Amino acid sequence: MTDVTLRERVLAANHAAAAELRERFAARGTLVVNLISSPGSGKTTLLEATVTRLAGRLRIGVVEGDIATERDADRLRRLGVPAEQILTGGACHLEARQVRDALARPGFDDLDLLFVENVGNLICPTSYDLGEAFKVVLLSVAEGEDKPLKYPAIFSRAEVTVVSKLDLLPHVDFRLDVVREQVRTLRPDGTQLELSARTGEGLDAWIALLERRCAAARERAAAPR
Amino acid sequence: MTDVTLRERVLAANHAAAAELRERFAARGTLVVNLISSPGSGKTTLLEATVTRLAGRLRIGVVEGDIATERDADRLRRLGVPAEQILTGGACHLEARQVRDALARPGFDDLDLLFVENVGNLICPTSYDLGEAFKVVLLSVAEGEDKPLKYPAIFSRAEVTVVSKLDLLPHVDFRLDVVREQVRTLRPDGTQLELSARTGEGLDAWIALLERRCAAARERAAAPR
Repeated sequence: MTDVTLRERVLAANHAAAAELRERFAARGTLVVNLISSPGSGKTTLLEATVTRLAGRLRIGVVEGDIATERDADRLRRLGVPAEQILTGGACHLEARQVRDALARPGFDDLDLLFVENVGNLICPTSYDLGEAFKVVLLSVAEGEDKPLKYPAIFSRAEVTVVSKLDLLPHVDFRLDVVREQVRTLRPDGTQLELSARTGEGLDAWIALLERRCAAARERAAAPR
Repeated sequence: MTDVTLRERVLAANHAAAAELRERFAARGTLVVNLISSPGSGKTTLLEATVTRLAGRLRIGVVEGDIATERDADRLRRLGVPAEQILTGGACHLEARQVRDALARPGFDDLDLLFVENVGNLICPTSYDLGEAFKVVLLSVAEGEDKPLKYPAIFSRAEVTVVSKLDLLPHVDFRLDVVREQVRTLRPDGTQLELSARTGEGLDAWIALLERRCAAARERAAAPR
């Protein structure tokens, strides 16, 4: 078997598992968001701020993907949300069957919103559908303004781009307008947000987007088939 | 063929190509450094500062690995050093045969120091020997202090850890002593450097390390066999 055939087989199996998950989420009216970025772009910090803001308004769960350590799941559990840690052991992305297995654990049955925080990597997670409603890619202003052009696949596949760590903007060389234009070229119909989870700047638009999309997912699940 | 067998075959082929490269570099007395980090940790900026500092003292060449764009090689060419861009087209790491092919281009024959800047990724490049003398992993202070524990393989395999973007330290939550201890645990015999390529802080130790290792590589090549 060639490399290509093997890769196609792996992707086909993942696709089937993702389709099954997507159907299950749709029936329950659960919005699922697949968060992707480099290590250290602030995925977990954004989730902490999001969970805190939405406490009592939406039932939220988190599935965390990492090579090693339970640190990220622990950070979310401390905020009182169900959080399951998937340890990939070395693999550079999550696969749909891992998400399915994690969701078999208690606490994930009746959610309005499920975040899947992928392994820190701008490349490998791009090709793996996890049954999500949409992908969100984070790019911290500390990472430099050339990243969308250097990692075009993820910036074209993610419906939402979040420029994070906006509080660092005065201290780095990062032109927001240059990045906006790159992302618009790669994903003309996408949504672009700019925020700092640390200061709260820009969080309102992110929260509003999630609430709007959760309401739509609930309505679709309640509509007669 | 199973996934595991295929991966083993790929790694074995890479290992053979890397061994051939290492022998060639040893015979010529060229020091080869494999630079690895997340996207946006400052690998190219460090190379620009390094090339500028060492101009006229060492003959330097650079091989750049990226998914897309020639931006990084262009940045180095502007400084007058031979720079070859490898576009992986989607692959998350460089392989030894790609480095070998890049070095067949003009300008790479008589170097004291060759940098291979890997694809921005803390995971995949870890397993691929490129014939280097040693790996350097960069971690920017903006990425967070938990990264060595979350990506232990690269921090244990890299002989040198460079904490970069030290000028951002006052603006982020990053305890240098916590990171030093994590890295020391993962790589007790490693060298740790902390610097800002932007301000020049800490660069002297990095330059001194490179000059010392280049001198040693030259001496070994000149010694009777």
